[in-house]
Amino acid sequence: MSDVDVLERLERILRSDEDVPPERAAELAVMLDEPPIQDVVRLVERSTATRAAVVLRLLSRRRSIEVFDTLDAAHQADLIDALGDRAVYEFFSELDPDDRVSLLDELPAEIAERFLRNLDDSERDITGVVLGYPRGSIGRRMSPEVPHIYEDLTVDETLQELRRVADDVETIYTLPIIARDHRLVGVTSLRDLFTADGSAEVSGLMDKPVFAAAHDDAEETARWFVPLDMLAMPIVDESGRLLGMLTFDDAADIIEEADSEDTARSGAHEPLQQPYLSTPLLKIVRSRIVWLLVLAVSALLTVQVLDTFEDTLAAAVVLSLFIPLLTGTGGNTGNQAATTVTRALALGDVRPRDVGAVAWREVRVGMLLGALLGSLGFLLATLVYGLDIGIVIGSTLFGVCTMSATVGGIMPIVAKKVGADPAVFSNPFISTLSDATGLIIYFLIAKAVLGL
Amino acid sequence: MSDVDVLERLERILRSDEDVPPERAAELAVMLDEPPIQDVVRLVERSTATRAAVVLRLLSRRRSIEVFDTLDAAHQADLIDALGDRAVYEFFSELDPDDRVSLLDELPAEIAERFLRNLDDSERDITGVVLGYPRGSIGRRMSPEVPHIYEDLTVDETLQELRRVADDVETIYTLPIIARDHRLVGVTSLRDLFTADGSAEVSGLMDKPVFAAAHDDAEETARWFVPLDMLAMPIVDESGRLLGMLTFDDAADIIEEADSEDTARSGAHEPLQQPYLSTPLLKIVRSRIVWLLVLAVSALLTVQVLDTFEDTLAAAVVLSLFIPLLTGTGGNTGNQAATTVTRALALGDVRPRDVGAVAWREVRVGMLLGALLGSLGFLLATLVYGLDIGIVIGSTLFGVCTMSATVGGIMPIVAKKVGADPAVFSNPFISTLSDATGLIIYFLIAKAVLGL
Repeated sequence: MSDVDVLERLERILRSDEDVPPERAAELAVMLDEPPIQDVVRLVERSTATRAAVVLRLLSRRRSIEVFDTLDAAHQADLIDALGDRAVYEFFSELDPDDRVSLLDELPAEIAERFLRNLDDSERDITGVVLGYPRGSIGRRMSPEVPHIYEDLTVDETLQELRRVADDVETIYTLPIIARDHRLVGVTSLRDLFTADGSAEVSGLMDKPVFAAAHDDAEETARWFVPLDMLAMPIVDESGRLLGMLTFDDAADIIEEADSEDTARSGAHEPLQQPYLSTPLLKIVRSRIVWLLVLAVSALLTVQVLDTFEDTLAAAVVLSLFIPLLTGTGGNTGNQAATTVTRALALGDVRPRDVGAVAWREVRVGMLLGALLGSLGFLLATLVYGLDIGIVIGSTLFGVCTMSATVGGIMPIVAKKVGADPAVFSNPFISTLSDATGLIIYFLIAKAVLGL
Repeated sequence: MSDVDVLERLERILRSDEDVPPERAAELAVMLDEPPIQDVVRLVERSTATRAAVVLRLLSRRRSIEVFDTLDAAHQADLIDALGDRAVYEFFSELDPDDRVSLLDELPAEIAERFLRNLDDSERDITGVVLGYPRGSIGRRMSPEVPHIYEDLTVDETLQELRRVADDVETIYTLPIIARDHRLVGVTSLRDLFTADGSAEVSGLMDKPVFAAAHDDAEETARWFVPLDMLAMPIVDESGRLLGMLTFDDAADIIEEADSEDTARSGAHEPLQQPYLSTPLLKIVRSRIVWLLVLAVSALLTVQVLDTFEDTLAAAVVLSLFIPLLTGTGGNTGNQAATTVTRALALGDVRPRDVGAVAWREVRVGMLLGALLGSLGFLLATLVYGLDIGIVIGSTLFGVCTMSATVGGIMPIVAKKVGADPAVFSNPFISTLSDATGLIIYFLIAKAVLGL
């Protein structure tokens, strides 16, 4: 039986019985042992909380921990009720301290409390260290368990220390080297130690460290760290003392969360934080309705603008034919600029003080795009509706493109400057804003050209 | 002098002189040695090709290679001309074979040829292996240099082999174990070897391998591999023989490229593949104009629809006031569904054959959203424009939301089924399509209710 068949059979069985009868359970457990781990993860992600819990309980202990570990913190939190206390406490104590904190952040305070009380002392202490850093800081995503490699140790002494702590620390491949007062002085790698002469001092194998401070912004730090293709880097306090390590996979998770959020917001909704098919319907509605309402209310602005020009519209009904075309094109041009700049801000390619440079680029891009589209619009509209309308459409397209590109480019930066999420203030709001402004441009030009 | 000051001074100097005079060069080289590597990367990313080349040439050999290595392949290709042959060949031969192939993919054929000819034989051979796999396959992103660890070796023999090859292979932390016929039989880690008894057989430390086949789709593979938080996994051929390793950072790069592309396309433009501020203006225009033209031409559909209903519009000009509000809301609802489903498809949460489940979810979500917005619209429009218009607006909003959410949810899946990029067929096209359909719904309801 191929893996795909096994998975399909599993999904069918799970979908038919909410309560798996004991004789079925044994059969399912055997089936679940077959497919590779990534397929079991997929199965859990596509299932409702109840069914996902059934799968997790039927898996072997090691595999179930591995699968639970792979899920997003928000999804883990969703499974808590369905799993039952015993399984939950076990999963919880097996998580790395940083992942444990991410899960705690998703839980109601009293449940989080209960979870912490159930940890053994040393695990609770180490979790407390991470919990001590503010949300959104890189300190909250670091692994606080690190080997203590002092600069005056030899390679052999270091290897011995590593063997001693290998089971407790998250990574032994990138190694921070510290002075006796715990200040970070360099990094080395197990690869380098491994090929070095055993009696040499580790300080001889030391590289200049790439590191971050615990209070640094998590997303910004992850954005510059990931492209460097390093496995991990040290995190230090204000005096440069070693606090923990940030691993590559945790940094990649931070970026993935941020990107999911940006994608969602530029699509005018909140992120689901959970796989689409296993998200309850009302949660989907909730993630969208506030945005829709806010945008619909701002769109009342366009009703207002058109109301003002109702006489012009009544005098030349033909003008109303182009409303969706013109607002649509303005919205598209604005969105293009906004998505580009939002992405550039997220990646750190553009900083808030580059606002002048961005505006100047977008004015010119918008004028070029407007000239091209405007000429085309002029030709087509002249052919079908005559020269007057041709001039109105052509010059409106030029004006709208220039205006939208500029506003679209500036808005994300303004949002960032006032401390809002650039993705929130980009696409959907750009569309509404450029709809209203575009209509004003349109009717002013029309009145002037048609003499209304 | 703090790092930020150094960077600002550097940027100012670079901006003032295109050609750095020799006495200035020495000073710059010293300054460039100070800031941490991530800041130098940022500086290069924000500079034009000529200035970036100046920086790269002034850096110490090791740092310049590190910085060049960090850039995207498309950006690397852009710097080729400015760098001059000698530096380029050196950077090129220092890249890992998989990164080298990514750069070759960005270069014109004759230049790629010349680069390959300049490699030494063994590097050319190993690059040839990766080049042999089709674009878009995971084989093209793997590292073909792997240690040969046979299952019958002892831990000590394995460690000895690793010491021998440590300088040549990309990773020695995740280790594939093979049978004598090179079939992959398991994986282990340096961490496990390192704490194990030296005389034990490696087969005793072996885990069931997570692996992919060289012809598997690169993005799909990276999407399931990255959440597993493993450092690397083996890549095999059809008979299960070991070909290479996929490292976590290369998988993360694949996802980052795919996400940048999806973000760009859902914002109706092509990805720039290069930092915004260092992209030439005409390249930005090019990335946008085709999209704008195609969308503007499809928007002619809305002109057509309105033209058909021109009599209705002339009879009740008040109807035109709501056009942008209604098309805007339809577009927003459609985009919400489209971004959600596009993201879910990219993450693998939704598969093409889930189209029925998705449609059924979105019909219900759309009806709920439509009922909420429609009631509000009914109330407001009735208050201001009277009961007739209230009924028209309320029921149009209900119809438009239901239709847009459903179409928005289905379109990305249809796109994927016909082999197109779901992101291309989602947001911008959804807007245009739902504009036209929404207008038809609007005028049909208006004609019926107002008796026109």
